[in-house]
Amino acid sequence: MYFQFELKKTDGQARRSVFHTPHGLIEMPAFAPVGTQANVKTLEPRDLHDAGAQLILANTYHLYLRPGHTLIERMGGLHKFMRWDGPILTDSGGYQVFSLADSRKLGEEGVVFRSHIDGSTHHFTPEKVMKIEQALGPDIAMVLDECPPPLDRAYNEEALARTHRWAERCKAVHTRRDQALFGIVQGGVFADLRVQSAEFLRGLDFPGYAIGGLAVGETKEQMYATLDVTCPAMPADKPRYLMGVGAPEDIVEAVARGVDFFDCVLPTRIARNGQLLTPDGRMNMRNAQYAEDPRPVQADCTCYTCRTFSRAYLRHLYKAGEISALRLGTIHNVHFMLELMRQIRTAIEAGRFDAFRIDFLQRFRITDQAKRHEQRALRKANREQP
Amino acid sequence: MYFQFELKKTDGQARRSVFHTPHGLIEMPAFAPVGTQANVKTLEPRDLHDAGAQLILANTYHLYLRPGHTLIERMGGLHKFMRWDGPILTDSGGYQVFSLADSRKLGEEGVVFRSHIDGSTHHFTPEKVMKIEQALGPDIAMVLDECPPPLDRAYNEEALARTHRWAERCKAVHTRRDQALFGIVQGGVFADLRVQSAEFLRGLDFPGYAIGGLAVGETKEQMYATLDVTCPAMPADKPRYLMGVGAPEDIVEAVARGVDFFDCVLPTRIARNGQLLTPDGRMNMRNAQYAEDPRPVQADCTCYTCRTFSRAYLRHLYKAGEISALRLGTIHNVHFMLELMRQIRTAIEAGRFDAFRIDFLQRFRITDQAKRHEQRALRKANREQP
Repeated sequence: MYFQFELKKTDGQARRSVFHTPHGLIEMPAFAPVGTQANVKTLEPRDLHDAGAQLILANTYHLYLRPGHTLIERMGGLHKFMRWDGPILTDSGGYQVFSLADSRKLGEEGVVFRSHIDGSTHHFTPEKVMKIEQALGPDIAMVLDECPPPLDRAYNEEALARTHRWAERCKAVHTRRDQALFGIVQGGVFADLRVQSAEFLRGLDFPGYAIGGLAVGETKEQMYATLDVTCPAMPADKPRYLMGVGAPEDIVEAVARGVDFFDCVLPTRIARNGQLLTPDGRMNMRNAQYAEDPRPVQADCTCYTCRTFSRAYLRHLYKAGEISALRLGTIHNVHFMLELMRQIRTAIEAGRFDAFRIDFLQRFRITDQAKRHEQRALRKANREQP
Repeated sequence: MYFQFELKKTDGQARRSVFHTPHGLIEMPAFAPVGTQANVKTLEPRDLHDAGAQLILANTYHLYLRPGHTLIERMGGLHKFMRWDGPILTDSGGYQVFSLADSRKLGEEGVVFRSHIDGSTHHFTPEKVMKIEQALGPDIAMVLDECPPPLDRAYNEEALARTHRWAERCKAVHTRRDQALFGIVQGGVFADLRVQSAEFLRGLDFPGYAIGGLAVGETKEQMYATLDVTCPAMPADKPRYLMGVGAPEDIVEAVARGVDFFDCVLPTRIARNGQLLTPDGRMNMRNAQYAEDPRPVQADCTCYTCRTFSRAYLRHLYKAGEISALRLGTIHNVHFMLELMRQIRTAIEAGRFDAFRIDFLQRFRITDQAKRHEQRALRKANREQP
């Protein structure tokens, strides 16, 4: 048996679990750093090991276009290609394709789209995506789904039925036994649609389930409320994956509602922007106040960046436009996220997760300035890369 | 005594020596990677240690402008600021200022120039540069000199006298006993001027001497011929530093003529361009021929990049525009240069340097394509950054 989900302890809705995969186990709750193009930007496998990463994510859309899934298959698959010997998850490419907006055309069969690299025309169907993901060879593959705007009821109703038919078609052609195919619950912020989706997919008996279509336009309160109704409708004996969510405060709130793992570009992207995560919120390392600050970014952090460099030096590297700044910031932010997950797991084991949640949220303040920075960065990223 | 030069063995004109500094010894012949802005681009101190770096270089012009020498002094000096505990050398900023061309004005007193960052006006005099370098606190500091076009006889004659007066003024105000101030021999490609310069500076009794003004427009043959006459005119009991030279073939030829150490941005800059160094010459990693090549860049190389990744993966990272490509390429190229220096030292110790030189040059072919790439990169770099 390649995959096994062990639920070790619950604390309220929060779950402490282990998911076994062909490339090792994943202690959950877990956070997966994102390696879009088979590389977590600026990091090497040894950095990810140092930070305690278990699962990492790669993007099917990007790798299909470049260097191509057949090339990666000929090179021995994604693990061997990128030299990551731990578990890997690939998304289905659906989210990227649907965010191409003007450059794609959707039908029952699948979706036709234009490459953001060279404008060439391609199509994704459930069958084609299964072929790609099986060629890439991650431990966890995702079904092709549609990700509608979460507040548009009519669109969500129409898309949901098609997404369900696509899930059936994916399941029908997926054959790799050393790869777990996960279903994706959709339905926007609408409780009845979410429950309907969870129940439909439960019938297909996937080895794990994701919650898709959140953190893409709704408020945080709407996201949390959606998790409140969706998680209980999902099987208790399978891992639950909240896709694309990764702000520390959202992770803590989602774990409290029963989510087991996460992925997000946030820690790596904001690091390249000069925003570093600490238990007291975000720091903008370009800020003049750090110009002569001899302290590390975070006093009790054990990452290489904090063990080695001062805020003053990091600020200099960011201001001077040095590539090293992006990397040293990324090393810290990824370490911060994985340390947060370790603390979450410990708190659940000790049966004190709710106290941890309240303490964490009280301390982790997000300034308006940092929020604006993030929004600008996300807008820019959406323009640049689908 | 803070500094000591031990000449351990000669083999023809080639010298195997050790230079002792307050931050440790430098086995020579040596190559210094360049950390213009107090950071060897994309690398960390641990990477430089792994590669076997001993001496690194930082640029006075850049650090004076940003973050400022007084800030670095307040942060405990350059070693502490950038967390490099080995020897550091700073140039005088002269070369950068003189390459500003239209944005600077020269007189007997010194040079007035406009910052490439914000256009603000600054001046460098010998006295000011000594103040800056003593504040930065490297182990080796360089006198302020003028670096004329190497083929312009009249300009070189006029500049040489001024450069000599500036060397005297630098020497007169330099007081840090834990910092070695080196003189710089100028004179373009003109044998009589070089000899005159070497003899004048010998009279000032510097603890070491550089050869400046080469590799900036003359042919390789002119450079080698200039070294043929300059090295013998320099003191035998002091280290000889050929500034800004770093193409592997030039290093081998310069060692054969009696040079002890080198610095150059070439290995780091061409790595960011996708050009990787091997004993068989340069490889352009963007080349389609490597798309499915499972081999490391260089089979017998022990750097992290070669121990870990295939050419296929590196090519993918370069083509996909991943920052990691620039870093993995830099790790390899810096390791290649430092390994070359180890081989040179071993060959001199064994009294077989000339055989090594002939073998190396025969194998290390530079294709015309690679040459064109390098020239384009250097032209671009000169436009972007003085």
